[in-house]
Amino acid sequence: MCGIFGIYNVAEASKLTYLGLYALQHRGQESAGIASSDGTKIHSHVKMGLVSENFTPEVFHELPGRSAIGHCRYSTTGTSSIKNAQPLTVSYCRGQLAMAHNGNLVNADLLRSILEADGSIFSSTTDTEVIIHLLAQSKKNTFEEMLVDSLKRVKGAFSLVVLTEKELIGVVDPWNFRPLSLGKKDNGYVLASETCAFDIIDAEYIRAVEPGEMIIINENGLKSIKPFKPVKQKKCIFEFIYFSRPDSYIFGQSVQKARKALGAELAKESAVAADFVIPVPDSANSAATGYASESGTPYEIGIIRNHYIGRTFIEPSQSIRDFGAKIKYNPVKDILNNKDLLVIDDSIVRGTTSRKLVKMLRKAGANLVHWRISSPPITHPCFYGVDTPNRSELIAASHTIHEIEKYLKVESLCYLSIDGMVKAVGGKKEDYCLACFCGEYPVQFNTEPDKNGFER
Amino acid sequence: MCGIFGIYNVAEASKLTYLGLYALQHRGQESAGIASSDGTKIHSHVKMGLVSENFTPEVFHELPGRSAIGHCRYSTTGTSSIKNAQPLTVSYCRGQLAMAHNGNLVNADLLRSILEADGSIFSSTTDTEVIIHLLAQSKKNTFEEMLVDSLKRVKGAFSLVVLTEKELIGVVDPWNFRPLSLGKKDNGYVLASETCAFDIIDAEYIRAVEPGEMIIINENGLKSIKPFKPVKQKKCIFEFIYFSRPDSYIFGQSVQKARKALGAELAKESAVAADFVIPVPDSANSAATGYASESGTPYEIGIIRNHYIGRTFIEPSQSIRDFGAKIKYNPVKDILNNKDLLVIDDSIVRGTTSRKLVKMLRKAGANLVHWRISSPPITHPCFYGVDTPNRSELIAASHTIHEIEKYLKVESLCYLSIDGMVKAVGGKKEDYCLACFCGEYPVQFNTEPDKNGFER
Amino acid sequence: MCGIFGIYNVAEASKLTYLGLYALQHRGQESAGIASSDGTKIHSHVKMGLVSENFTPEVFHELPGRSAIGHCRYSTTGTSSIKNAQPLTVSYCRGQLAMAHNGNLVNADLLRSILEADGSIFSSTTDTEVIIHLLAQSKKNTFEEMLVDSLKRVKGAFSLVVLTEKELIGVVDPWNFRPLSLGKKDNGYVLASETCAFDIIDAEYIRAVEPGEMIIINENGLKSIKPFKPVKQKKCIFEFIYFSRPDSYIFGQSVQKARKALGAELAKESAVAADFVIPVPDSANSAATGYASESGTPYEIGIIRNHYIGRTFIEPSQSIRDFGAKIKYNPVKDILNNKDLLVIDDSIVRGTTSRKLVKMLRKAGANLVHWRISSPPITHPCFYGVDTPNRSELIAASHTIHEIEKYLKVESLCYLSIDGMVKAVGGKKEDYCLACFCGEYPVQFNTEPDKNGFER
Amino acid sequence: MCGIFGIYNVAEASKLTYLGLYALQHRGQESAGIASSDGTKIHSHVKMGLVSENFTPEVFHELPGRSAIGHCRYSTTGTSSIKNAQPLTVSYCRGQLAMAHNGNLVNADLLRSILEADGSIFSSTTDTEVIIHLLAQSKKNTFEEMLVDSLKRVKGAFSLVVLTEKELIGVVDPWNFRPLSLGKKDNGYVLASETCAFDIIDAEYIRAVEPGEMIIINENGLKSIKPFKPVKQKKCIFEFIYFSRPDSYIFGQSVQKARKALGAELAKESAVAADFVIPVPDSANSAATGYASESGTPYEIGIIRNHYIGRTFIEPSQSIRDFGAKIKYNPVKDILNNKDLLVIDDSIVRGTTSRKLVKMLRKAGANLVHWRISSPPITHPCFYGVDTPNRSELIAASHTIHEIEKYLKVESLCYLSIDGMVKAVGGKKEDYCLACFCGEYPVQFNTEPDKNGFER
Repeated sequence: MCGIFGIYNVAEASKLTYLGLYALQHRGQESAGIASSDGTKIHSHVKMGLVSENFTPEVFHELPGRSAIGHCRYSTTGTSSIKNAQPLTVSYCRGQLAMAHNGNLVNADLLRSILEADGSIFSSTTDTEVIIHLLAQSKKNTFEEMLVDSLKRVKGAFSLVVLTEKELIGVVDPWNFRPLSLGKKDNGYVLASETCAFDIIDAEYIRAVEPGEMIIINENGLKSIKPFKPVKQKKCIFEFIYFSRPDSYIFGQSVQKARKALGAELAKESAVAADFVIPVPDSANSAATGYASESGTPYEIGIIRNHYIGRTFIEPSQSIRDFGAKIKYNPVKDILNNKDLLVIDDSIVRGTTSRKLVKMLRKAGANLVHWRISSPPITHPCFYGVDTPNRSELIAASHTIHEIEKYLKVESLCYLSIDGMVKAVGGKKEDYCLACFCGEYPVQFNTEPDKNGFER
Repeated sequence: MCGIFGIYNVAEASKLTYLGLYALQHRGQESAGIASSDGTKIHSHVKMGLVSENFTPEVFHELPGRSAIGHCRYSTTGTSSIKNAQPLTVSYCRGQLAMAHNGNLVNADLLRSILEADGSIFSSTTDTEVIIHLLAQSKKNTFEEMLVDSLKRVKGAFSLVVLTEKELIGVVDPWNFRPLSLGKKDNGYVLASETCAFDIIDAEYIRAVEPGEMIIINENGLKSIKPFKPVKQKKCIFEFIYFSRPDSYIFGQSVQKARKALGAELAKESAVAADFVIPVPDSANSAATGYASESGTPYEIGIIRNHYIGRTFIEPSQSIRDFGAKIKYNPVKDILNNKDLLVIDDSIVRGTTSRKLVKMLRKAGANLVHWRISSPPITHPCFYGVDTPNRSELIAASHTIHEIEKYLKVESLCYLSIDGMVKAVGGKKEDYCLACFCGEYPVQFNTEPDKNGFER
Repeated sequence: MCGIFGIYNVAEASKLTYLGLYALQHRGQESAGIASSDGTKIHSHVKMGLVSENFTPEVFHELPGRSAIGHCRYSTTGTSSIKNAQPLTVSYCRGQLAMAHNGNLVNADLLRSILEADGSIFSSTTDTEVIIHLLAQSKKNTFEEMLVDSLKRVKGAFSLVVLTEKELIGVVDPWNFRPLSLGKKDNGYVLASETCAFDIIDAEYIRAVEPGEMIIINENGLKSIKPFKPVKQKKCIFEFIYFSRPDSYIFGQSVQKARKALGAELAKESAVAADFVIPVPDSANSAATGYASESGTPYEIGIIRNHYIGRTFIEPSQSIRDFGAKIKYNPVKDILNNKDLLVIDDSIVRGTTSRKLVKMLRKAGANLVHWRISSPPITHPCFYGVDTPNRSELIAASHTIHEIEKYLKVESLCYLSIDGMVKAVGGKKEDYCLACFCGEYPVQFNTEPDKNGFER
Repeated sequence: MCGIFGIYNVAEASKLTYLGLYALQHRGQESAGIASSDGTKIHSHVKMGLVSENFTPEVFHELPGRSAIGHCRYSTTGTSSIKNAQPLTVSYCRGQLAMAHNGNLVNADLLRSILEADGSIFSSTTDTEVIIHLLAQSKKNTFEEMLVDSLKRVKGAFSLVVLTEKELIGVVDPWNFRPLSLGKKDNGYVLASETCAFDIIDAEYIRAVEPGEMIIINENGLKSIKPFKPVKQKKCIFEFIYFSRPDSYIFGQSVQKARKALGAELAKESAVAADFVIPVPDSANSAATGYASESGTPYEIGIIRNHYIGRTFIEPSQSIRDFGAKIKYNPVKDILNNKDLLVIDDSIVRGTTSRKLVKMLRKAGANLVHWRISSPPITHPCFYGVDTPNRSELIAASHTIHEIEKYLKVESLCYLSIDGMVKAVGGKKEDYCLACFCGEYPVQFNTEPDKNGFER
């Protein structure tokens, strides 16, 4: 997952980009970068680590200009290294360009092989570099046409912000896998993965960028085109469940509202008697409020999360029980002791942390522990930009709910149904990519089955 | 405010101290340090910054031994500099000692003048160094007696952990201003400001250290003495309201339980019709659940807090409205729009952030905004270890509630009453230090009235 | 100027490369990098700064394998930034390759334009990336042929080491502008700009790589080919005068021996009575010993150089006379006072530092000051890899020797003649590139005359 | 060994101190610190590492004022840690003071025991802190008297600069073990270990501070007193042989002149036929010029020293012959091959590096190797501030010259005689401390014989 941001024709563009990235930090903590244009030249600063660690006053002197793009990254393709940190800035026949990408292409490896066979060299292992190569090799006449030409050849998820010396372009793939929103700031424009990045800089939210839409912003103002063959949109529903900040709008909808509805729907489907509804913080907080108000079971803070987590943690060689979970979570004994709990989490991936949490809650005195998940079982990996593991590591890919229940050692385990999830988020089932829940991949890809006998 | 931790006779003592400090990080983010004893020599590593940034694998090689103490600091006396970072480690007539201190002395300046007049030199500006000087100059025969001798001369708040080559000592002033708890780990003992530091290392909580109690842990086991003249205990009630983590026990009581009761009591005193109860996160979350369950008004997450805050923030020169508050908080528009809100915060100091928050909520569409505080008005500065500003900056020291209400631009503002607060926390009113709410300072001090015509 | 190093089939290849680069550090202090091959994959670590600052024990864990190349850089083309630091590592149709380059191409801009027009993108602003693009686009069958194909299209100076998963290749342009030597270490081979890099790792010097020679080292052993059309060799004579370390062999000859002969020849041409011969340390030390032994004038250490120079220097705002020169040099008053001096320097570029030195020597009491240069006047910029300024800044491009003499305020100024220089270094005049002294550029280039009305 | 610097009543005092320390960097590379006074308060910045790495523009904002002192340290007492880095800044009865110390006391341990028994605490393990304790405990009336009172109780070597809010004091012990010089800058004064620190800031050298002299500089101007009982001066002769920079004056004499005379005297005592005189660079360069001019044997540069040495060096696990020496030195083969060499070094401590150098020279083709030392054999450790090892590690303490000759594997080894050394440096034998050469310690001390049966 990644966060992207763009701004055009606003004073101190790089500083505002920095603030925008800071608001999008939850989408990627591995690297952060900004490229700015002073009208004739693109400047860039990219580093591993958090936004707030990377940008000092001196850095901003080297990022002049009234337009800029930014990126924060959690690696999905390409290893975690500075070479893969974005925005990627290159020079090519028309000058310079910088690109920041959220999403994964499914034909990047194939295109890369073709490009390499044809003489291209690659400096990174990102699929973003594939797009740039295609763009640079396009025989079209304008930058806009070249970018369209390039994007018509790729398949998969791309929400992009692209900066040239004179233009800012935002574009979303026709399936609209990843969100991108448009806003207004003073006399200029902003683009961001989530609207929380508009709030921090006092920008005004206009609307979501639409499926397959390309927005070109330059001295002539803003122009919108839809250059791709229309397909059924397939928005990532997991953005509502987990990725996005609750105070954001994505795909034109409030995340918090969706998340509360997911909790409420979960209550309708699988409410059970309990003393308290306890969220696994912070990702399940909103769903828990929805569950609480629907079920009438009181919302309670039963697990505290430590937010000071640093990058490397020194583990004592003598084992501390459930070490990894303890670094992050601690139960509130006084609340939990001798109580029946309804614990809500947003999802289960491998199940290991959930199992440790149950153990911690039991040790804190919990009586019955019912586990509820505000989304359906994840049975398939994502190929469109989410860092899910292979099927062999996804506990729900190979275990029944009853087996997982026994593994977690909980009194009961219920997931939200696919229909319930869609109902909660709103819209039609066919508008969303549900691949991770059902294995129906909206964009096909040609890869060998993985060693687990599954798709990857 | 500071966090202190000590451990005796446990393998990898310095690594466990590091984890303990990590759990206590909320008590001070300015500096972090560990001193360990290998039985014959004390080793020390102290640095500015967060615990998770300061301790690398190499550092632990230089912190050998089975006993250690640690400290994380937010400066109250002494400027913020490495010289004042703790534990303070010195050599003196009996060898070496390291000391970590939570709390403020009120006669430190006087004692320092006397000591300096008598020929002492000071390397730091902490009042902790005063205690060490007095200890080193004591003519008593044993370390224990020297420490007691020293502490009998100081007045004010001290919760201390002291490490010598062979011993770990924990001691709390007779008023018990600051919490300190005792636990057991394997065959050894642990001491910490809050019990959340025990949980992270799988230590077992035994009990709170009592007012005026000194606990001496060495090869002969654990010994408890009460060397000071007994006084009425005066526990800091603000530890329950704000400082401590909700998952901790302090003074033998659950913080979360107290905080929920504060919210419930607030509801009894000043409930008003509203669509939602909204906490200012994260410090008012627990109180808000108490308010919600008592009042029946639904708990809702209406403000999102960004936890990635770094140390220095680059502010654009063009003003962003309410910049400081925006870096930390963002309202959830969809939830708030056109709703009547009951917002709960733990306290108001200067009122500036609250005012900005109200403005943000209004902009997000809030209809009525009622503001509730889960503690009484802060009218007086703390001299026992909390970094409150001068009276001139405390809004409640010079303004009526009605005036503050108008300043914040809220429909109503209510604080919890002192009696309500004590009732919620439990115990008798006289057991708590209430100086910041009423100006009755339990330990007298001799300072000139400050320039505001107030006590300081 | 840059230093390059390569090693094949030796244990701890990356550590030996690090030591080799350390010995070549004088050739470039801006960035340092190593790429290693473990036989199937290339690993790389490149950073701004000195070799000894960049490589920690952890870094070597990430640079496994028995072959490696390294580079230290002082920028001549491309700005000073991490993007331009070498070795450049890319993937292309045949896998991965890393390249390190010493020298400058004269048709890089042209080729770059052609490549960009044809759809190539550039991540750096180095001319090395041009070579890699050409290589990747070659339609030849083997890597060796592709590299030759690429290099046949470039013009100018290139001494290269190239690493693939399985091979190490060293190659020198047909003019042999920059030195490259071949050595043996255990059962493997080494390549380096100067032989001082062999000495530090106990490698045995075999011979200089010859003009236009390509050395291919792989599991089949070492193979030498001469794929380029032969031209007259044009070795950079300035390598003898200034760049190389005196303890190195370059182009098969001892630098120290050449440098002493330059000093001796200078004495023959322009000796004058003086109390002492004083070198400007350290670059003129060897020439001064040659001058001293030829002239009989005693060698004396009259200027001390401070070697602790850091990267940024804080200059007081109140001016210190000759600040820049003072940071580096200090005269030895007791030696100089009332003495007639013969000062030797290797060259004069702008003349500003020399002028400051003269002033310092006068202040130290020097009586007569004769200035001698162990090379002819630099009148033209270098386009083959040396960072000389534009003609407008070269004092000898626009001033007579007599004018420079007056500018420096010396009693006399003499340069070595071109013939004397060639005689000293040995070989024939036509074997050397003398462009900076006479403007006869052996490899033509097509650029607009620069703003000074000169070639660039 | 350490370097000290002080400045009074000059604009940008801390920046000039930084430049002064930069010139004194050869006297200590372990830590560097500056304390400045703005007239009412002392500010301080002290860090491990080089001067040029420690001081950034921001640091100077925190070091305001027109007076300052600085220190660079190579540890002789106290371990290498930030606690022991100087200047030491403390507060005491009269305000604040900062002190920087060059030299070692011989009764520091005893005084420390007495002070600790009396109740003092020590934050560092330097003997400098002993002086400050004694000063703070003095019952005298003025700061000057207190400092004198304190210094009358210590024995051994101290050259000090002391800064108070209003004064700068420089003082040298009555034996004058370590040098200190006085200079003038604009309307203020400067003090420094060596005069090269004056040259870099354009200060004018006045004279050496005399044995037992205390110089008090304040708003009343400069005052000199001699408060100590006079003793025979005992200047460290090793300052001339090795420590000081050749361009400095110390004890009122030119170092370069002394060093040349040492070489000349060595030639008189032990010249032998050789093709070249080769210095071990850089410390023996000046002596070698003296030897060359006296003997008529030509001076030649036969060993090159690498100046880029960083702090930690990665040694490959496969052994490189003479690794340590190779990092620093490389022979010039072409010069040495088949030649008879007369190599000059300033001294031999353990003999290990010399032995490696001989091996390197032989491998480079040297024929005969005669080894000459421009000082007598070091047979005893220094207790006055030089970091010499125990007698057991001093090769000349337990081996005859003939045995060392065999160990080094040289054709001949000659040291300079004590009388020759004194004659070269000038003055009377009794004016110098010759303890390291003969074991006659001018200031007695009471320590147990060490495990080697020697004095320490």
